Amino acid sequence: MSNRIITISREFGSGGRTIGKKTAEKLGIPCYDAELIEKIAEESGFAANYIKEEGEDATGGWLSSRAMGPTNQDKLWLIQRKVILELAEKSSCVIVGRCADYILKDRADCLNVFIHASMEYRAERIVKVYGDQKESPERRLKEKDKRRAAYHRFYTDMKWGHAQNYHLCLNSGILGIDKCVEILKNLY
Amino acid sequence: MSNRIITISREFGSGGRTIGKKTAEKLGIPCYDAELIEKIAEESGFAANYIKEEGEDATGGWLSSRAMGPTNQDKLWLIQRKVILELAEKSSCVIVGRCADYILKDRADCLNVFIHASMEYRAERIVKVYGDQKESPERRLKEKDKRRAAYHRFYTDMKWGHAQNYHLCLNSGILGIDKCVEILKNLY
Repeated sequence: MSNRIITISREFGSGGRTIGKKTAEKLGIPCYDAELIEKIAEESGFAANYIKEEGEDATGGWLSSRAMGPTNQDKLWLIQRKVILELAEKSSCVIVGRCADYILKDRADCLNVFIHASMEYRAERIVKVYGDQKESPERRLKEKDKRRAAYHRFYTDMKWGHAQNYHLCLNSGILGIDKCVEILKNLY
Repeated sequence: MSNRIITISREFGSGGRTIGKKTAEKLGIPCYDAELIEKIAEESGFAANYIKEEGEDATGGWLSSRAMGPTNQDKLWLIQRKVILELAEKSSCVIVGRCADYILKDRADCLNVFIHASMEYRAERIVKVYGDQKESPERRLKEKDKRRAAYHRFYTDMKWGHAQNYHLCLNSGILGIDKCVEILKNLY
């Protein structure tokens, strides 16, 4: 029997990770996110914090530093790719972030989801949930959006946030997190 | 009591119009599409066929012809806008196409939906449903996509098909038309 996978791409602060976790809980399948980071860390020898920073967003100077061969970020990409392919073989699951939609694009049994929300909603949420500073959370979000889009463009050649790349795109700010979970659960 | 509106933007051939009609039927509210065209025709004096062609897609030469003032397409845009605002005031409804999402963007009671599907799915569908010629339906779709995107960009300054512009984006080819209807009905 084939494993069924939900991949969740999400804008920072949109609650995509929460939606992934809650959906997986309701379906009784694992959700890989922080767990995935640790798994990758084990295999790569990179520190978990390094992977958290570099494994999904473009960071300072990364585009100009390939003259000497693959960067650490390139190596990390290959390890992430391997881990995600293995997880998808192992069992049904939800995978949050890490370009899993692209990595698993040849599997017919994937539901690829994009979670997004308005700047206002996300700004309020990162202050409340992550305890971010109340000054200019918008600036941090814009920075994160830009880096994540650049990372995706570089490794997947897909336009971040373009509806055609996903099977389902949900505005968590308008629909609410629980409604998003319900939709995903019912579709599975 | 406030009226609740579902606006459906859709790629040509994705079944967005069918999804709109079926959803409206299940909810017992009107769906405006061909009906909307006739209503606009009545007010404008334009022929219904002209409106069908010019009321949603950019057509030949349209961008270069504004040196002498508003084009017929600009006038049509203003009439469409007025009709859509009136319909939204009148009762709850589903409105398919015609940039209704943008025109009604200040209403809190709108659910803005984008329906899309792969080129393969849409090509097969327009041959089957519309009886399109079997030769190169892809070329016709690409042409339609381009014109519709240009029309939207010009009148709304929004990126066509960008997830962030909608509350919900559904791939009708993957999810199936009936599942899309079910999701919309349950969200309403």
